[in-house]
Amino acid sequence: MRKTMARGDSYAVILAGGGGERLWPLSTPERPKQFVELFGGKPLIRHAADRLAGLIPPERILVITAARFVAQTRAALPMVPPANIVGEPCRRDTAAAVAVAVGMVRARGGADAVGAILTADQLMTPEEAFRRVLGDALAVAARSDAIVTLGVEPDHPATGFGYIARAEKVDFGTASEFAKVERFVEKPDLETARAYLATGRYSWNAGMFIWKASTMAAAFAAHAPEFSGLIEAVAAAPDVEAVMAARYPAIRATSVDYAVMEKATNILVARCAFTWDDVGGWNAIAAHFPADARGNVRLGKTAVYDAGNNIIVSDDAHVTAVVGLENVVVVHTPHATLVCARDRAQDVKQLVRSFAFPPCG
Amino acid sequence: MRKTMARGDSYAVILAGGGGERLWPLSTPERPKQFVELFGGKPLIRHAADRLAGLIPPERILVITAARFVAQTRAALPMVPPANIVGEPCRRDTAAAVAVAVGMVRARGGADAVGAILTADQLMTPEEAFRRVLGDALAVAARSDAIVTLGVEPDHPATGFGYIARAEKVDFGTASEFAKVERFVEKPDLETARAYLATGRYSWNAGMFIWKASTMAAAFAAHAPEFSGLIEAVAAAPDVEAVMAARYPAIRATSVDYAVMEKATNILVARCAFTWDDVGGWNAIAAHFPADARGNVRLGKTAVYDAGNNIIVSDDAHVTAVVGLENVVVVHTPHATLVCARDRAQDVKQLVRSFAFPPCG
Repeated sequence: MRKTMARGDSYAVILAGGGGERLWPLSTPERPKQFVELFGGKPLIRHAADRLAGLIPPERILVITAARFVAQTRAALPMVPPANIVGEPCRRDTAAAVAVAVGMVRARGGADAVGAILTADQLMTPEEAFRRVLGDALAVAARSDAIVTLGVEPDHPATGFGYIARAEKVDFGTASEFAKVERFVEKPDLETARAYLATGRYSWNAGMFIWKASTMAAAFAAHAPEFSGLIEAVAAAPDVEAVMAARYPAIRATSVDYAVMEKATNILVARCAFTWDDVGGWNAIAAHFPADARGNVRLGKTAVYDAGNNIIVSDDAHVTAVVGLENVVVVHTPHATLVCARDRAQDVKQLVRSFAFPPCG
Repeated sequence: MRKTMARGDSYAVILAGGGGERLWPLSTPERPKQFVELFGGKPLIRHAADRLAGLIPPERILVITAARFVAQTRAALPMVPPANIVGEPCRRDTAAAVAVAVGMVRARGGADAVGAILTADQLMTPEEAFRRVLGDALAVAARSDAIVTLGVEPDHPATGFGYIARAEKVDFGTASEFAKVERFVEKPDLETARAYLATGRYSWNAGMFIWKASTMAAAFAAHAPEFSGLIEAVAAAPDVEAVMAARYPAIRATSVDYAVMEKATNILVARCAFTWDDVGGWNAIAAHFPADARGNVRLGKTAVYDAGNNIIVSDDAHVTAVVGLENVVVVHTPHATLVCARDRAQDVKQLVRSFAFPPCG
């Protein structure tokens, strides 16, 4: 393993699209989940950048977000050069964003530079385990023509994630275990998820993947050639946002999984030892904090009287009180308050969608 | 009936003590129920004064409240002369306050002037029916030596009010029906309350009673003579608050019901045709507003998703949303939010008492 080669040319590309639905009202369409500061007093996107420490320096961290979040993102990541943070003029799903990422990495590091598509709004513990597998994946991507996905070890039959079926192992002499990918599968129902877990051959698709710029460009050219022009234009022009402004309106909105990953054959999966949490709802949030004697998770100024197993979140200056209720989520923020049955927390997004928000693009 | 005599010398004395527990957080110890503005955009104490229109002019409305509420009360009642609104230095229950009321009425209108002890934080509908019975009660008190209580017709076996047992009728030629009082009874249990209703002889004790200053002073002298000095001092001195400051610390804290009313024999009860509501909790509040198709009573900016039979109150600039819950009270104010099972609304006072508030007096 030639570490120096991998590390010198490695870039992180954090996709920070948005989505404020499931943690509303703490997150909102105007302040999506990556800016939520519940953990360690810093936003999740800052966690995403900070956990690269020692592996990828800030000047090689790139962020692709929505145009309206560029200023917030630059404020959250003051150590990242402002030009590394670019905003999409409208939402075009992940295929277009990854094409822009390939172009940006090639413009900065050449065709042999390696890029890692990373998420903006997840927690990973221990972070050292994440850095170890990412370092190995960067090295493998640099010295092979494979696209390397990170596959998280499932600990329960989740129905909210896609899965990756692993084929035979491939030994690169790394601490991390790599395997060929047999196939990607969409979010399963519970019975199917249980069957996947029983085989021991399935990982969760964490939405993170690592590639040499030339490898990913070739994959687009083979499976979704309509994005090749975008890659070339971004690689050639100094103003990435101008390229997006010109090309996005006509480009297809599709996911990189559908456009490329499910069709490419040169994909490896790295098995990950870290616990991965997309904190995609209030119950997931609560798992990160201790409960009181009655099982209430309480953040901020809260009061309870004969109440148990609730999640109560209140901002600093405000008291939030719960009387005679169980299994309720109560979240108070300056602009809105949510009161929701714990087992209905996934329906918060339905409520938020029912509000009239301005359309994107 | 000599209307002119009764009306020329009539004073209203509104007792506005406090108590913010059952409507917390809309009411608080610092902003008790009489200042709540849910109904018609004006505080309940303003309703108490406004419904006297045509019967008692503002310059003959007196208010006895706690010293710390004097400024708020004057602001809520700008048409009442500021000197008519006095603050008790500490809480001494209703006997002392009524003694002060007797002294104030006598100082202004002489021994034959009539005073009506009225409540500060209740709704009465229709108000015309209230005015009619109050007018008759003022006239009867002026021309007799009776203390006249207002007895509200019970429409259910309430356990939260005291009751008045009526003896034989007394005809004063008024539209309202008057009867002698057989006895006052404390808040009953449900079975006892049902038995009271079955007799058809019981009224709810509304805590409002009307008397000539000389009559009420004589009742104190006969049954609670320790308060006579307070009456005389208030009647003689221009500065009522100075008298209270000097005499309250040593005075007994007891209710006028216990000290005088339950012992006096010259008491009449006027049967009232109005509906009387002390809006003493969130369920009582909700009854005054229409519900949506799912039975939710919603005040302010609210949102619901698959939720029914809730009471949701939100201040103007804030959205309060309820998802997947039934029979819950949610009240948002700028300083605090309450989330409570509807059938546990009476426990809100337990919660509020658990907070550390500075003691009074």
